[in-house]
Amino acid sequence: MTQIFDDPANFADEALDGFVAANRQYVSRVDGGVVRSTASPDGQVAVVIGGGSGHYPAFAGLVGAGLAAGSACGNMFASPAAGQVYRVAKTASNGGGVLLSYGNYAGDVLHFGQAQVRLNAEGIDTRTVLVTDDIASAPADQMGKRRGIAGDLTVFKIAGAAAEEGLNMDEVERLAILANARTRSLGVAFDGCTLPGAPEPLFHVPAGLMALGLGIHGEPGISEHPLPTASELAEILVSRLLADKPENSGTRVVPIINGLGTVKYEELFLLFGKVEKLLTAAGLTVVEPECGELVTSLDMSGLSLTLFWLDDELERLWGAPADTPAFRKGTMARRAHRDVDVLAAATDVETERPTAAAAALGLHAVSAIAAVRDVVVEHEQELGNLDAIAGDGDHGIGMRRGVDAAVAAARSTASNDVGASVHSILAAAGEAWSEKAGGTSGALWGTAVIAAGAALGNKDSYTSRDAAAAVEAFSSAITELGKAELGDKTMVDALLPFRDAFTAAISGGAPVGRALAVAAAAARSAAEQTAKLRPLKGRARPLAEKSVGHPDPGAVSFGLIVERLGRHIDAELIGQGAKA
Amino acid sequence: MTQIFDDPANFADEALDGFVAANRQYVSRVDGGVVRSTASPDGQVAVVIGGGSGHYPAFAGLVGAGLAAGSACGNMFASPAAGQVYRVAKTASNGGGVLLSYGNYAGDVLHFGQAQVRLNAEGIDTRTVLVTDDIASAPADQMGKRRGIAGDLTVFKIAGAAAEEGLNMDEVERLAILANARTRSLGVAFDGCTLPGAPEPLFHVPAGLMALGLGIHGEPGISEHPLPTASELAEILVSRLLADKPENSGTRVVPIINGLGTVKYEELFLLFGKVEKLLTAAGLTVVEPECGELVTSLDMSGLSLTLFWLDDELERLWGAPADTPAFRKGTMARRAHRDVDVLAAATDVETERPTAAAAALGLHAVSAIAAVRDVVVEHEQELGNLDAIAGDGDHGIGMRRGVDAAVAAARSTASNDVGASVHSILAAAGEAWSEKAGGTSGALWGTAVIAAGAALGNKDSYTSRDAAAAVEAFSSAITELGKAELGDKTMVDALLPFRDAFTAAISGGAPVGRALAVAAAAARSAAEQTAKLRPLKGRARPLAEKSVGHPDPGAVSFGLIVERLGRHIDAELIGQGAKA
Repeated sequence: MTQIFDDPANFADEALDGFVAANRQYVSRVDGGVVRSTASPDGQVAVVIGGGSGHYPAFAGLVGAGLAAGSACGNMFASPAAGQVYRVAKTASNGGGVLLSYGNYAGDVLHFGQAQVRLNAEGIDTRTVLVTDDIASAPADQMGKRRGIAGDLTVFKIAGAAAEEGLNMDEVERLAILANARTRSLGVAFDGCTLPGAPEPLFHVPAGLMALGLGIHGEPGISEHPLPTASELAEILVSRLLADKPENSGTRVVPIINGLGTVKYEELFLLFGKVEKLLTAAGLTVVEPECGELVTSLDMSGLSLTLFWLDDELERLWGAPADTPAFRKGTMARRAHRDVDVLAAATDVETERPTAAAAALGLHAVSAIAAVRDVVVEHEQELGNLDAIAGDGDHGIGMRRGVDAAVAAARSTASNDVGASVHSILAAAGEAWSEKAGGTSGALWGTAVIAAGAALGNKDSYTSRDAAAAVEAFSSAITELGKAELGDKTMVDALLPFRDAFTAAISGGAPVGRALAVAAAAARSAAEQTAKLRPLKGRARPLAEKSVGHPDPGAVSFGLIVERLGRHIDAELIGQGAKA
Repeated sequence: MTQIFDDPANFADEALDGFVAANRQYVSRVDGGVVRSTASPDGQVAVVIGGGSGHYPAFAGLVGAGLAAGSACGNMFASPAAGQVYRVAKTASNGGGVLLSYGNYAGDVLHFGQAQVRLNAEGIDTRTVLVTDDIASAPADQMGKRRGIAGDLTVFKIAGAAAEEGLNMDEVERLAILANARTRSLGVAFDGCTLPGAPEPLFHVPAGLMALGLGIHGEPGISEHPLPTASELAEILVSRLLADKPENSGTRVVPIINGLGTVKYEELFLLFGKVEKLLTAAGLTVVEPECGELVTSLDMSGLSLTLFWLDDELERLWGAPADTPAFRKGTMARRAHRDVDVLAAATDVETERPTAAAAALGLHAVSAIAAVRDVVVEHEQELGNLDAIAGDGDHGIGMRRGVDAAVAAARSTASNDVGASVHSILAAAGEAWSEKAGGTSGALWGTAVIAAGAALGNKDSYTSRDAAAAVEAFSSAITELGKAELGDKTMVDALLPFRDAFTAAISGGAPVGRALAVAAAAARSAAEQTAKLRPLKGRARPLAEKSVGHPDPGAVSFGLIVERLGRHIDAELIGQGAKA
């Protein structure tokens, strides 16, 4: 039962504030999470972790020297929004690139992915290593589908230690991937946890039973068993993990027993004693184990065993010092505090003072987004109907929600004393689009709008070359985040012909308005052509057949939007600010 | 619900084994608890803590450099036995004396007290500082009656840091007393905890209510309240603690929010944020706070707030480095491991190789204890009846249980290839007496027998001077542990006349048998005289009147025992081993 709060809606935020208040020597609060309050060497790779709140010490408790540089902290059991991840990562960055690492959950993948696209678009080398240690969540031949649970710790620790050693991004990424590949976990649950303000636990395990492999948010497990003795439980966990050990596992292993909240220390230690004996009996050497509460789920009754299979490199990094609120290892001199001005400047990433000319262009951006909104509203019903043929029918309403929020955010951003640049307008619009639309198409549109804004930047005027760069950035964001290719029957089938036609027209000397018209026609035509395709992404397989003969709604909406945008720009912008 | 175990009866032991297995870099297992596995400077005061198990990280998790030197670990929520405390303290000792510190609970006071008497008898300067931080357990003018809860941490930390600085015993004791005097805690509970194997929680708090001041084992609190908001809870805790602040409290304070088991980190942090604001609003400066699980009660749903009021000295010590499994502060070079041979030798404190003559004397000690058993058995019923007049009537059965166990332990100790000295026989007998008899009179007898054995030592022969020293040690142990004085109507009213008569007779040149006979007569007579007294110790007040006119059962049993012992020694011992 989670019961210490004023308003459950503010629980995660207030808890994070209190965490920072209790740990100022380690962490500073930023919008969306926390970063180290201590200085890190220039050029050090920043390992940025995160996920939903309710898993302390994951994730904020692992921020500190030798481990994470920052943590994006979402609402209870909910992914942080892309903007939160972006801001935390940007503030945590030390000039050596950002390695994002987090458990493999759909929401996190989407939002961290958006942030990665945005950071890369701004020139911050950003990569991702997903944690996929839970052997109960997918078979061994589908490692990539596995969830991340307590194995988070090993991947974060190895990446953090590698960064602390001064290794470059390629090396830090390689080692984090290696750590994940050599980490296996299996959990059990005896009962569920209660979200703040909820009258009942999120889920239950039937009394007298133990659920093997049940996820930390109640995701399905493998099987249910009568409550075992501690020796039987140790045997179950160890034998299943040994059966799933990685290739070339070696004989040196770190066991980590993790309590999820209400299985207490004495029980965890008792189990550890039995696990250690089984591992030793299997001819393994136990190295620097951990036993405690490392990744919790509020007051969930359950635990997990992780085996982390070392090689020489990983053993060196696992044993390296770390100094964070909840995880300390070895001896590490306390770092100097990060300069508060530098931190404040880094935190306030959106601050700008645009010129009058730049602010005027910003207003044009607001008006362009409003034009996009008009076309979406006009076609909302039609897009919904098209999506309902082979999907869940929410494409129209999703696009509407996203673009409504984008217009509101753009207007709000522009409405200050000095106005706002195209960059700021599109950043705010894209972030709002992504957060309010929800789902994948919202994430794609939001991220792409932000990327286009970053490419355009804060300027007093734009050339057609700038426009081409913006289209390229928009397009790359979609393909990088969505991973769809031509022929998959997605928005990409209209997007790439659009991009190619636009780029070719600009290269051939066409003004922006003309190039847009040509490219939009190509997009509209390509969108219609998707009717012939069988979808491979973004649609459940049983529905794929039904879609044949109908164009993809995402491709159609894209074609409609760029067509309207071409007309809008032709009418309003050309001849005012942009030069050929 | 505590559910990870094989046999609930072995829970505490197996949990402690597992704890040590997971933390070998910090702790070594010894009979009765754990000690540092790392070397400590010679002459450093050893701070030895402890109590029942089920409170991790209290107490074993706080053993390490800069904090405790060892922890005696009892069964679940039960005091360690005196012998456990003794062995842990003896092994932890570095030649600078032992400071025992623990929460003020009757069982702990009794058992740690016995160990202290025994350690002092062996020449190890041993002192005690009780933790009495729980303001709910007694009013401010009865600080000494208050229980110890999460304030344990501040007292242990200050004592450990003082010892680490190389301060001597007087200083370490003074600072621990000061820390306790400046520490106040108040807890709340939402529900009870479940002991391993128990079908139901140890206690319940009615649903929808919060119990203010409920003890960590379910001891009565102050009042019950409807569940408050976090802000209201912070206000209740802070205002009550500020109303109870020590004199000259100053303005610098360490707040410690401690979760008891199932109130989780996010909730604790949320509350911390509110507490910090209230303290700051009250004009106080928050210094190096703690927020987490520091003294738990299995899966109890509850928390406490501790305020530790600093002065310059305490602030320096609170901020000093510490490196233990569960509590780390600052930066501390990892210590070298303690030499395993030294540790083994220290652990094996009972090992001896008596000569044949010493072993023969040991057999006489066995036979003397058997004679004591005979007289107790003969008078068991009579002693019980006498005790029932103004007590709970268990003096006969308690003495019987104790002396039965003493005889069995003495025989077992003597029954090896080389036999055992008087010292070892009496140590084993006294320890068994204390543990099996239970209660105060068992503790007194057991401790006194051990003290007499320590005074006699392992020798090939004894003089009448040795006998006088043994009587003196026996007597001092009783008065030191029991704190009773002449006229309190206790065993002491027979004991002191006995001791004085015995000493006078020996000084006058009487042989031991003669001196014993004279002294026993004095004891018997003094025991009868206690009929006139009104009891002040060891009896509930309403029963005091009823006892007038009847002798004290403890004094009577003492008189009977020494009388029989005199006859036994006269018959068996004199002329065989002892010389005048």
